[in-house]
Amino acid sequence: MSSAFRGVYPVRPPVPAVEGYEGVGEIYALGSSVRKLSVGDRVIPSPPTFGTWQTYIVKEEGLWHKVDKDVPLEYAATVTVNPLTALRMLEDFVKLKEGDAIVQNGATSLVGQCIIQLARIRGIRSINIIREGRLTQLGADAVFTEKQLEVKNVKELLAGVPELALGFNCVGGNTASLVLKFLRQGGTMVTYGGMAKKPVTVSTSSFIFKDLALRGFWLQKWMSSERAKECREMIDYLLGLVRDGKFRYEYVFLLSADMSKHTT
Amino acid sequence: MSSAFRGVYPVRPPVPAVEGYEGVGEIYALGSSVRKLSVGDRVIPSPPTFGTWQTYIVKEEGLWHKVDKDVPLEYAATVTVNPLTALRMLEDFVKLKEGDAIVQNGATSLVGQCIIQLARIRGIRSINIIREGRLTQLGADAVFTEKQLEVKNVKELLAGVPELALGFNCVGGNTASLVLKFLRQGGTMVTYGGMAKKPVTVSTSSFIFKDLALRGFWLQKWMSSERAKECREMIDYLLGLVRDGKFRYEYVFLLSADMSKHTT
Repeated sequence: MSSAFRGVYPVRPPVPAVEGYEGVGEIYALGSSVRKLSVGDRVIPSPPTFGTWQTYIVKEEGLWHKVDKDVPLEYAATVTVNPLTALRMLEDFVKLKEGDAIVQNGATSLVGQCIIQLARIRGIRSINIIREGRLTQLGADAVFTEKQLEVKNVKELLAGVPELALGFNCVGGNTASLVLKFLRQGGTMVTYGGMAKKPVTVSTSSFIFKDLALRGFWLQKWMSSERAKECREMIDYLLGLVRDGKFRYEYVFLLSADMSKHTT
Repeated sequence: MSSAFRGVYPVRPPVPAVEGYEGVGEIYALGSSVRKLSVGDRVIPSPPTFGTWQTYIVKEEGLWHKVDKDVPLEYAATVTVNPLTALRMLEDFVKLKEGDAIVQNGATSLVGQCIIQLARIRGIRSINIIREGRLTQLGADAVFTEKQLEVKNVKELLAGVPELALGFNCVGGNTASLVLKFLRQGGTMVTYGGMAKKPVTVSTSSFIFKDLALRGFWLQKWMSSERAKECREMIDYLLGLVRDGKFRYEYVFLLSADMSKHTT
């Protein structure tokens, strides 16, 4: 069940409503004045829209963004939210250059996997915090478990790790504090999720003496009609990377029946 | 005992050291190449320097900033840290315009008193949170006690209060959360103190959905040699306001024996 469905998000479609904010479809029929799309084209709603979890959906031409058929269906179906979030968060908060590094918790999440790879493509190293286990090799430069970092002498453990200007938090609670520990003077932590359902707690000295900045990111707010073109360029860029074998992610969720039926 | 003396700040002068970071003095004697100062001039160290709590102090000419003798001594002695902090924090984080409003906790603190008046001079209203009691009339537009705000239906209480883009926190803990409640979508809270000795706790949704930004401010970091001129202009501006009767603050601390001896 999606977060939107559970009522966690401050955006609620009028009920009754069809669920689904992401997805890919195939054009089944066209209105008489449609010019740029053809029957059989693969399209995704961009900007994303509610109601993708249905067999047939009718929306005006301008909503649909055509994607190449050689892009794996599961990527076309999922590119609009999590990968775009990763891409924007790497661009919008701190000007990073080749050789810099970022830190993130929840690094096995879909956004986390995307951050590792998109950072790597830009020559940016990633320090990754995971709950336990291992992180599939996607180009992560360092991986720590939360337990490893919950020691007193974390500085010793981090010897050799560069001082970082940017961190991402999708967990909250103590695990957010671990991200803060990695940040250098004047660093920024961006919160985009709260998997632990615990708030972020920050010492006064982190603000005053370490000059940390704490921000948040929500793609749905970033996206607006004026950004439709930019959005589609990002989607094409990401799906291009997928096609070229430079970008992949693993879903831990089951694809919905309808979507898996179409998977090539 | 000052915070620096207690070792709270990350800046520690080599011991043995003379305490005192603010103060005003009178020129007692001059080196032979001093040109711009005369015996009897009143001067303050700017940028501030350690060691003002002594009867005589010898420093090079460039360190001293001459102040008018018609400025009350207690203001000349205290202008370099707290009032400058208030001034900078109103300028550096959010572009405010006439008619806007800010919110702050610890509003009876010296910085708090300065913020109220410096905001008012710019036509900016202030919403003030205090522990208890009343706030001396300095132009505060609204004053709430912490207890008043710790109710469930805080929205009703705040009806008519404009949505605020900027808040200041010098307390921490629950009282910082009260400041966050007042902020509008995309608002910024600046932490410059932690009187409650408790961290700032922020919900994930405050970052993601309310898009709040949390920052910190420390004057000592802001000040640098390149900013010496700007610093002195700010000091002259503030002391000018004092002289014109537009700016005043009440000290809850005792003046040190030496300073009170000289008070006119």
